Amino acid sequence: MFNYNQAYCYMTVHPLDPIFHPRAVAVVGVRTGPAAGMMGSFYDSLLETDFPAIGGLYPVNPKADEINGRRCYPTLLDTPDPVDHVISQVPASVVPELVDQCVQKKVRSIHFFTAGFSETGSQEMASVEKAMIKKLRDAGIRAIGPNCMGMYVPASRLAFMNGFPTEPGNVFLLSQSGANAGEIVHGLVSRGVRFSKAISYGNGADLRAHDFLDYAADDPETDVVTAYIEGVQDGRAFFDALKRCARKKPTIILKGGRTQSGSQAAHSHTGSLAGSIEIFDAACRQAGAMRAQTMDELHDLVVAATTNTRFIKGRGVALFGGGGGGFAVLSADAIDREGLTVPRMPKSAVDKMREYIPVAGSSVNNPIDAFPPEEHLEDMLRLVATAKGIDMFFMSPMTGWRQPPPGSKPAATGAGKSKAKKAKPAPVPAAELALTQEQKLENANKAADQMRSLEDDTGTPVIAVLRSGRMARMMGQSKSAMSEAGYRKGIGVYPSVARAARTVAQMLEWKAYRKGLPDIFKKG
Amino acid sequence: MFNYNQAYCYMTVHPLDPIFHPRAVAVVGVRTGPAAGMMGSFYDSLLETDFPAIGGLYPVNPKADEINGRRCYPTLLDTPDPVDHVISQVPASVVPELVDQCVQKKVRSIHFFTAGFSETGSQEMASVEKAMIKKLRDAGIRAIGPNCMGMYVPASRLAFMNGFPTEPGNVFLLSQSGANAGEIVHGLVSRGVRFSKAISYGNGADLRAHDFLDYAADDPETDVVTAYIEGVQDGRAFFDALKRCARKKPTIILKGGRTQSGSQAAHSHTGSLAGSIEIFDAACRQAGAMRAQTMDELHDLVVAATTNTRFIKGRGVALFGGGGGGFAVLSADAIDREGLTVPRMPKSAVDKMREYIPVAGSSVNNPIDAFPPEEHLEDMLRLVATAKGIDMFFMSPMTGWRQPPPGSKPAATGAGKSKAKKAKPAPVPAAELALTQEQKLENANKAADQMRSLEDDTGTPVIAVLRSGRMARMMGQSKSAMSEAGYRKGIGVYPSVARAARTVAQMLEWKAYRKGLPDIFKKG
Repeated sequence: MFNYNQAYCYMTVHPLDPIFHPRAVAVVGVRTGPAAGMMGSFYDSLLETDFPAIGGLYPVNPKADEINGRRCYPTLLDTPDPVDHVISQVPASVVPELVDQCVQKKVRSIHFFTAGFSETGSQEMASVEKAMIKKLRDAGIRAIGPNCMGMYVPASRLAFMNGFPTEPGNVFLLSQSGANAGEIVHGLVSRGVRFSKAISYGNGADLRAHDFLDYAADDPETDVVTAYIEGVQDGRAFFDALKRCARKKPTIILKGGRTQSGSQAAHSHTGSLAGSIEIFDAACRQAGAMRAQTMDELHDLVVAATTNTRFIKGRGVALFGGGGGGFAVLSADAIDREGLTVPRMPKSAVDKMREYIPVAGSSVNNPIDAFPPEEHLEDMLRLVATAKGIDMFFMSPMTGWRQPPPGSKPAATGAGKSKAKKAKPAPVPAAELALTQEQKLENANKAADQMRSLEDDTGTPVIAVLRSGRMARMMGQSKSAMSEAGYRKGIGVYPSVARAARTVAQMLEWKAYRKGLPDIFKKG
Repeated sequence: MFNYNQAYCYMTVHPLDPIFHPRAVAVVGVRTGPAAGMMGSFYDSLLETDFPAIGGLYPVNPKADEINGRRCYPTLLDTPDPVDHVISQVPASVVPELVDQCVQKKVRSIHFFTAGFSETGSQEMASVEKAMIKKLRDAGIRAIGPNCMGMYVPASRLAFMNGFPTEPGNVFLLSQSGANAGEIVHGLVSRGVRFSKAISYGNGADLRAHDFLDYAADDPETDVVTAYIEGVQDGRAFFDALKRCARKKPTIILKGGRTQSGSQAAHSHTGSLAGSIEIFDAACRQAGAMRAQTMDELHDLVVAATTNTRFIKGRGVALFGGGGGGFAVLSADAIDREGLTVPRMPKSAVDKMREYIPVAGSSVNNPIDAFPPEEHLEDMLRLVATAKGIDMFFMSPMTGWRQPPPGSKPAATGAGKSKAKKAKPAPVPAAELALTQEQKLENANKAADQMRSLEDDTGTPVIAVLRSGRMARMMGQSKSAMSEAGYRKGIGVYPSVARAARTVAQMLEWKAYRKGLPDIFKKG
């Protein structure tokens, strides 16, 4: 019988690494009815990722002989061959028996989806949790949870919810909460990010934050680390691991339970004692980690760290397109409010642009609310991107580039012959409204490629502001320059100017207090 | 020939009222090709609302004999019968001739979509603007604009973009920016709000903010007023009108150009001089108006003023359902951060809930992250809504009510017989994922009705937090208790707990400094 544990011993990998690469998985207490989302659809998710193509998958439930055409085993001990990883969906009361079976079966790791232990506040269940973890550790078995969703490892075809891509990326996610882990994965995937590993670890009775941070620091598949944490269990070990990790890789932390109300909720949720938020924040800062205050900020900072946003050096924003003059005004307010600037264009640039942009209904003085003739568009963008004081370019593609403003296009009239300056306007996509999904995707890809080439030519990072959620998803899913966030060279996509500006400002602030930057901040 | 102006003289209506009720409209310089959105699709929009069913609609353009099967006239003077309202899509250079024709035709009002006047910064075009307005005023003709989108009046079947509902409501919108007006209408419609009138007035060369505020104050169709303003033209008149309006109706103001960057952009956009934001804010406060800092805040405050949010009296929030324990933790943080509270449930209520809610994977101590058996759901909600210290109930229907947490439902297992307490779990809608749009809408309506009846029975305002944009739109479009925002008794719908909490906090702050509340705050 092949011994996976032994085989791994001879490789220079982190001791936790084998856990992320099981060759056989048993789902014990598998649901026999339909399940989805947080209901524990592990078995379905592993079929969706086609885990059986690379490893053994054994559903266990005495009430069924067969599930989805695959044989269902009455107990874990009835499964054939070695089992590396067990997913426990049994109720808390029968966990002790399952633990004994795991020891007998010599499994490598167990993930307890099962809840009802220390987080309930019951002394008795806290003792049961402690005892079962001791028994597992004594047998060399590591545990994830209880009260969590477990592992998403695309390269190993592990997933804990449906709809997770099997394409691997460079972000490591660590989350005490399973629902938050799911939200982070789904949300960031739609913005072009991909994951090396994502772990929901719940109560953290055995493996906990510092173990995973220590692993992530060395993981060659991981460039960026992010964590949702409700409570720190071993303060010293946590901050040591955080420091080690953050020194090597941008590490973005969201602490749940920052307030009194949130801290009480965290205690009910994962049994976490939130501790002093001031001490936590100070320690993060000392470790060189970035702190997100909200879930949105966590998403945005991960996008920033995985895309061109991380290369922005100064505070000057050029803003182009979007939604008319009122949008430009409110956007300029939002940029200013976050401590960035909207530098005026030099007179030479304004004069140049006025050669082909009609005065009516346009502004060329940043924010650029102007619609040059198609043949001048590239010139204009390059002129703006290289103007003095411009450190980044915010763009709303698809809408901004295509929508002429009131009055900019002379129309024939009954009141007399038009004397307006004749400028050939950018082509108006009248059929835009009736485009198919494929055509919209193609347009999105084209816009992304234009932005990428503008950045490559000028050296000015280009940020995409996509106000429509649907458009953002399209951009995220497309195989374009914009969607390559998971591959270190994508274009940052943000849902609003305010969020883009806030993210840039936070990134700049973090870079200012860091002593030296992680490798991913080196270009090329 | 019937004289509309004369007929209106004998009615006790505001002098501006006839402008909102034209019986015949000419679109001069009508586009002969396709148009949409901000491109000036006025003619299409008026066909979409079926304006011709109640009034004359005359496209004017010498280059076409027919548009959409309707006769197209070479000049305004060729149109038959009286024309009350003219929409100008001609270029700025030919506006003077059109103005002469309007005088000759004795129209009542003209809306200049046409841009290229004072907002360009050109002295010459500012003079042209001034001269044309003088000529119109001398002839008794009022002007909207230039450089704007004009009027949306559902009851008169006027609309300036496609997709605006013809169903009238109780909100009056005033916006210098056309694009922002469109965004506000579309965004609020999707959250159940409907409009009495919406006006985009651009440069405000003739009719300006104070005229419209004065009208809105008296308009019997208007309960709530909101405005997007870039610059105040007549300070004294504006603040007098604002004071008058805000005293009678909740009035929500968003000022564009609050910062230096935004103020420069506003000057380029509508020629506005932003003035001191401190003086503006102080004057708003003195007038008793609410100030929104961002577009999102404007949307949220209008929802608050038109729904049950306005009746909330204290700061205690009960939170139920949503997205698991991590979501509950971050939500509690967000509520706390906005100065609201998440009171703990009294021991008696906790004990009562624990009779039917299993301990594993649940919290009953606010935030409520628990899934009672279906037959106990109503009891539980009423228990929470009436608990000491609870002033409002935040709910995430559709997801929270239906999703059992890990471990809460005992599953059969090979490791032994379950000894977990048998609780009949709430029915799990396995088919939920495969529901049709109609079925989802029906579920949304059912959830809305449940929330309404909970509020009616307990007197505690119920707020819906719908994280998915799609769900929010569905809710907004459904004919449910939730969608009746435009009819003074709807349920407030917000896209996140943070925004709901912030809105409630702002509303409470505003109520605290007001001396007396507008009529709409009186219940019944």
